[in-house]
Formats: sequence, structure tokens, C-alpha cells
Amino acid sequence: MSVLQEISPNVRNMKNLERAILARRAWQIKEELKQGVRKPYSEVIDVSFGDPHRAGVKPLSFVRQVLAACIYPRLMHSDKLPVDARLRAQRLLGACPGGSVGSYTDFAGIPYIMHRISEFITRRDGGVPSYPDDIQINTGSQWSLMNVVNLLVNSRASPRSAVVTPVPCHATAISTFMAMGAAIVPYYLSEKQGWKLEIEELYRALDSAKGVYNPVALYVINPGNPAGLVQSRKSIEDVIKFVSEKRLFLLADEVYQDCVYGENSQFLSYKRVLAEMGPPFSDTVELASFHSASKGFFGECGLRGGYVELVNLDPTVMKHTFTLFSKDSCAPVLGQIALDLMINPPQPGDPSYPLYSMETQHMKTTLVHNAKKASVVLNSLPGFCCQPVEGGQYLFPRLFLPQEAINKAKEAGTQPDTFYCMRLLEEAGVLASPGCDYRQKEGTHHVRFYIMTSLDIMEELLNRLTNFHTKFMKEFS
Amino acid sequence: MSVLQEISPNVRNMKNLERAILARRAWQIKEELKQGVRKPYSEVIDVSFGDPHRAGVKPLSFVRQVLAACIYPRLMHSDKLPVDARLRAQRLLGACPGGSVGSYTDFAGIPYIMHRISEFITRRDGGVPSYPDDIQINTGSQWSLMNVVNLLVNSRASPRSAVVTPVPCHATAISTFMAMGAAIVPYYLSEKQGWKLEIEELYRALDSAKGVYNPVALYVINPGNPAGLVQSRKSIEDVIKFVSEKRLFLLADEVYQDCVYGENSQFLSYKRVLAEMGPPFSDTVELASFHSASKGFFGECGLRGGYVELVNLDPTVMKHTFTLFSKDSCAPVLGQIALDLMINPPQPGDPSYPLYSMETQHMKTTLVHNAKKASVVLNSLPGFCCQPVEGGQYLFPRLFLPQEAINKAKEAGTQPDTFYCMRLLEEAGVLASPGCDYRQKEGTHHVRFYIMTSLDIMEELLNRLTNFHTKFMKEFS
Repeated sequence: MSVLQEISPNVRNMKNLERAILARRAWQIKEELKQGVRKPYSEVIDVSFGDPHRAGVKPLSFVRQVLAACIYPRLMHSDKLPVDARLRAQRLLGACPGGSVGSYTDFAGIPYIMHRISEFITRRDGGVPSYPDDIQINTGSQWSLMNVVNLLVNSRASPRSAVVTPVPCHATAISTFMAMGAAIVPYYLSEKQGWKLEIEELYRALDSAKGVYNPVALYVINPGNPAGLVQSRKSIEDVIKFVSEKRLFLLADEVYQDCVYGENSQFLSYKRVLAEMGPPFSDTVELASFHSASKGFFGECGLRGGYVELVNLDPTVMKHTFTLFSKDSCAPVLGQIALDLMINPPQPGDPSYPLYSMETQHMKTTLVHNAKKASVVLNSLPGFCCQPVEGGQYLFPRLFLPQEAINKAKEAGTQPDTFYCMRLLEEAGVLASPGCDYRQKEGTHHVRFYIMTSLDIMEELLNRLTNFHTKFMKEFS
Repeated sequence: MSVLQEISPNVRNMKNLERAILARRAWQIKEELKQGVRKPYSEVIDVSFGDPHRAGVKPLSFVRQVLAACIYPRLMHSDKLPVDARLRAQRLLGACPGGSVGSYTDFAGIPYIMHRISEFITRRDGGVPSYPDDIQINTGSQWSLMNVVNLLVNSRASPRSAVVTPVPCHATAISTFMAMGAAIVPYYLSEKQGWKLEIEELYRALDSAKGVYNPVALYVINPGNPAGLVQSRKSIEDVIKFVSEKRLFLLADEVYQDCVYGENSQFLSYKRVLAEMGPPFSDTVELASFHSASKGFFGECGLRGGYVELVNLDPTVMKHTFTLFSKDSCAPVLGQIALDLMINPPQPGDPSYPLYSMETQHMKTTLVHNAKKASVVLNSLPGFCCQPVEGGQYLFPRLFLPQEAINKAKEAGTQPDTFYCMRLLEEAGVLASPGCDYRQKEGTHHVRFYIMTSLDIMEELLNRLTNFHTKFMKEFS
């Protein structure tokens, strides 16, 4: 008889991601293809993750050159690497204990890099000051989120602590909240208005939790994931007033801050807007802002480096956050270094600048092109309805499935959009992720497509999707 | 007024590590030295972490060559790297999604590496089978531990779930248990018997928890940290019988498995002994065994790669572990690759073998030499008493402080062994960590020294320590 008869309720309530089932099948299909099994495609296109390299994009040369020299310092003397890459590696290694990326760093990160991050934030926010002691570097922004939520959630209290969370919301955040014992109070983004965050909906959500949960924090994602909204200054101000009034901690996921391309859209950080609103907001609203080396054009997901900036926290609380973060030993050193490279790219005049500039410019052009192209194609397909995107790297079109397809999915004991994605994978070799992983309004279905791929791959994806979709809709209508 | 008036009790109860205070002062001292402030030493020797590079040891060349080629694949064609390093890099990159270390991998790790880990375990354990599906790769073994404990602990239950934990115990494990809402039920290793684990003490500890806590797991560290014990087969069998009788989940920290050098000592894994005991133990006792690329001779702490093997877990429970681990996206890819290199070093005949063999052999000889030398010196100093060590990379001598020093520490509002360590740092430039961070029997004091340093540094450290200690004891006697 098992000791583990009773799994912790935090974990028991966590949902297994549907995309994990799809990923397993995709892995099998790749094996089958290797073994020569004939399929209507020779390769699986994987746009299920927010992961550019997986989707066929090449890493930035400068980044990899610096990292390689940090890993194997004998390369410091090699003329195969540009001189600025070597100098940068030297400076960064000098900041590592023992001069090695193999050492533990300070719990909250390498102090030199924490300084550089706060300088970056100050520049980004038009001079609003940022302090290195408020920065904590961690193994990706989700780990920082986990620690902050652990600080906020009293898993022994009744009613249970809850996080007010957008729908749709990327799946790892929801898993993180649940793993830390928080309940989820959903607020729905308005799909019809391009996934706009409506303040009245926040009030409704909070009201709905009365007597059931104790909401302690509001989670916002700007630019959105999977929804491609970018908040205006007015929208951010309204959110800040709301959390101030309702005394909620503000958790701001801003990992796609460098990916804004909607006309009239620009990224404004919560930190900046908060500071510019002045008292009483600027010195009372407690805010955690998350950023990451995994996302945007930088896209080094596998290195696992992210940070959180904590604003307006009481010094006693800050001490506890330090203790909590310290249990993690430290973030991967190469992930920390990646953050430094992300926020301090080569500048005009540096030997690496022309190539770096060309590579990032190409990615930006490609992303904008893909977003437009894919939206047009999706909206031309009967049954798909795709909102215009202003930022981020995803499309999250609504899928109006024929009733027969929904019935078929139910028979198979699977979610309707998972059913669709599984067929898309089997028949067209395209791995996308089903809307149910992101939560969605009851009775609606969606598919998330990652769009930071090369132009060729996007072309091929849209062709395969169009053919598959047309056949699928015919089959079930 | 702060939203965060009430910090989660899990976090509130966590203790800030004393060694963090010492580390901050060490950092200031280094800055002072840089600015030309005169001190009786020109460099701080940092033996406060289990971190060889920080303590002056060089990384293994082969490891860094493979990692560099994985990071910057253009090096694959460079004749500066040995051919086996390049081939290995090629094979490992081929197993990464998108052929990049910048991609997310499967949640539980790269399947190829999970296979290799299970092959390694089977070899290590004399043929006892291991299955890739039971392996989960994570950001260091402590992250794996955190997830397993999250699975076990019901933070909403009364009485509270608890982990039966050795004293002394390395500090991150204690922080992890507390952060996950577990209470700690201590069992004391017998210092007089070389920190032996006594079974009667386990019974006493469990009895002491009756009615207060609900113990769900037993944590063991073999080889020990900070205590240098290596358990015998008999001792391991006794522990297994104990957890079987008491229905506890067994958490086995085995990260120093390649560091055993006591005469008549050998490392035996809990997994192996469990299998060899046969039924009913072998098919019922639930075990999690942790290993890491950060420890032992490999010592790549900054890459953050570890794994857990889960044994005898119910398939339903395994599903939940998968869900729980999946919230972490994936372990750093270079940490995963490091695990592959650790368990599959170059073999005789490979171009990299001679250098690899020389480097590791040198480390082993150095460690054994340092352990002996430091024990002799410590035991020659009045007030220090150091048990013989059989494995691991630490000495944890007891420190009998003069009453006057204890009083002085109390006046300063600090722990007596922190007081000693702070003076050692200030006056001799040696950063060691105080016993209070590891918990210790009431009224006893200890200091932990990391001993995987170069011979020179150990020599210098022991000289500085001897001079300082003699002066210190004189001052307070």
C-alpha cells in the first residue's frame, strides 16, 4: 500500500497539460519518420512552445560567442571570436566567483548583472529609478513568480488565498499558482475587442470571489500571451487604481516587452506608469515585474534566466523574499549572463553591431510579416476568427468547430480543441497547442500558434493548415 | 499600509542563513582589498560553499569543450577541440529540440539523456534495472527535492506534515522543506561515532513527533553533508526497514556518491540495497534518489543540473509528479548536458581520456590529502575536535568556544559560531560557514570547511586558521 495515498491537494488539483499529450505523440511521429514511415509530410513543424529555436530560428551570433568564451575561456585568445565578444566575456567572467560559470553566485544573482539590470530598467522607464537590491535573478521568470506567490499565499488560511488571473493565460502561470496552493479567480479578456482588459470585468471577478476565496494578487500579462494585446497607459493606470483600491499585490508579466508592433502601440512598464502617477499610488502599490531571457527576439529559453523587480515592498518583507530566493542556491550562471547580453546588446561602432543589428532586424520584420500573413490566412478559413495582434509572438484564433466534431471529441473523451490539434498533428504534421490549456470562456475553442518562425516555415505551416482545415471542416459538416 | 502584512507562514518561519551575512561582509572585504585597503591578507579564501571553482579548482577541460561546441556550433569544425568532444557535442545537440541549447526540452528532460541516466544507474547498481520514465531532470537536485516534497506535504492538514531530517543537515534542504510548508522533525547523527546514523535515534525522533506533526518522509544524506559519514549496507538496510515499518517516503540525497575515500567505505545506493533486500521491501518502499552535476569532482554548480529517480511510486502518483515538474518548463539545457558528461566520461582510447583521467585523478588525490591534512591540523588546535571523514567534501569540526567568546557573541546579538566565523573572515580572510546554519545539538558549536581546494590554498588556509585560532583562544581565555 502506498505511502502516497494522499497527494498534497495543491498538486492534486493541478491539471495535466493537453499539450503534453500532443508533444508525446509528436515525438513518436518524429521517430516514425526517422524509421521511414510514410506520411504526407517529412517533418513536424512545432509551434506549440514560445520557443524560436524549436521553430527554426537561429540564435543570435554575438550571444553565443560571448557564452562560448565564458564556458571555455581559452577561446578568449581565439581570433575566431570578435574582440567585443571576447572583452564582454572577460568582464562577465570577472564578475563570477572563482572566475568560472561553474560556481554558485550570490543567491539573488551576480551583483554586477543586478546593477546592469537596474540601469537598463531606468533607461527603459525614462529615468524612473531602479535599485539593484530590488532585483532578484532566477531560473526563468516563472521561478521568480513561484517565489513571490509563495510569499503571498497562506495555504493554511481559510478562505483560501487566490490570484486574480486573466483568461486566457499561459499555462505555466496557472500551474505555478496552483502548485503554491493558490486558488484561481478568473477575469476574462474581451476577445471581441482584441482581448482588451476591461476594468469592469476585474470588479466582477473580485465580487465573484467574495466569501469563497481571499484574493491577494492580480496577475496581468502585457504584452499578452496567448492573447496579443498591448495595454495603453490609460488601461495600466486603471489597473493600478483597481489594485490600490482593492489592496491587491500586482504581478506583472512583461516578458514580451520588446515585441510590440501594433500601429499606435507601445510598451509601457507597470513600474513606469506607477511612478508617473505619483502619490499615493507610486509609493504604496506593491508590484513585482517579471522579465526573461527566454522570450522576445532574444529567445534563449534553454538557458533559463529571468528576473523580478520588486517595488514598494516593506523592508521586512524584502528580507523574507531574500531568504526565500536563497533556498534556490542561484540561477544558472549562463542564464544570468544571457540577461546581461539581452539588456546590453552591441552598440553602433562595436565590431559585432552590424551582424547583431541585421539578425534582430530580420527577426522583427519576419515576426511582423508572419503576424499579418497568418491572420489573413486564418481569417479566410471558415470557422477561424483571429483578432488583430499588437504584440507578443502568438496568434490565438477562435475556432468554431462543427457540432459533429465536438461530439466526436466527446466520444473520444478528449477536449474539442485537443481533438482538432491532434488531427492537425497526425494529418498535417503541425504541432500547435489547444485553447483548453489556456482556459477559455465555457463553450469556446481556440488554438495557439507560435509565429516567430522563419518565413519559409510559416508559409509551409499555413499551406498545411489550410489544406487540413478545409478537409476537416468538410468531414464534419 | 502594506498588502503584504501577512507573509505566508511557510516563508515567515524560514531562517535567514548566517552565512549570507558573512558572504555580504566577504564581498565588502574584497571590494576594500581592490581599493587598496591594507589587510593581513591579499585575498579572501572562500570555503563556505560546496563549490570547487570558487575554491580555486579548475573545471574539467573535456566538459567545457563539449559545452562550448554545444553553445557555439561553429566550433564543431574547429581543430582546437578534440574530436571526441566535438562528436559528443554533435550527438547531444542532435537530441535538443531545434538542434539548439536555447530551446525548451521536454518537461522531464531530454529523453536521450534520461535514457543515458538510467543506463548509468543500472551499471552503478550492479544491474538493478532503472527506467527512463522514472527519471526527472531538474535545475539542481534541490529543485527536484522541492517538487517531491510539494507532492508529499499537505500544507492544509492538521497536524502539519513533517519531514524527519538529520542534524546536522545542509541548509538548502531545510529551507526547501519549510518553503513547501513542511515541519522539521530532527534526528541527531552521533558525532562521537563519526556522525553515524543510529536507528534508535530515528525511533526516538518519530516518537517525539507523536500528536504534534504528521511525519510523511525521512530525509537521509549519504555520503554526508556537512557530516562526512558514509553509510554501510547494514545501516542502509536498517533505514529501509524503518521507513517500511513506519510508512515513510524515503528521500535519499546521494549527490556525493563519487566522493568516498574512507578505508573500508564504499558507496551503495539506497536503490540498489532496496532492490537487493527483495520483497516486501523492494516493491513497496517509495524512494526518491537525488543526484547532481554540481557536486563531487564534477562540480559544475553554476550550470544547475540535477535529477531524481523515483522508485515504487504508484502510476497515478507518477502522473501527478509529471504535472508538477511540468510547471518548471524544463531544466537548463547545459545543466542537462553536464549530467550526460558526468555519467559518461571519456573512456580509455578516447582522445580526451588521458587529460580527463589526469585531471580527475589529481582532484581525488588532492581531496584525500586535504581531508587528512586538515583533520590533523584541526585536531591539533585546542578547542577543535574533528571526526574522521569517509566521504563528501567537508569537514565539520566541533568548536569548543571559551565562555567569554560565547558571552561576547551574545552581547553582539549573534550566534557564537557566526561570531567566530566573522572574526576568522575579518582577521584571516577565510570565509567558512557557521554550524548554526546546519542545525546542531543545543549548546554545541561547529564550523563547516569545504576541502576540495588546491593543495596550495589548503596549506594557506590552514596556516591562516592556525594563527587566527591561537590568537582568538588566547584573547578569550
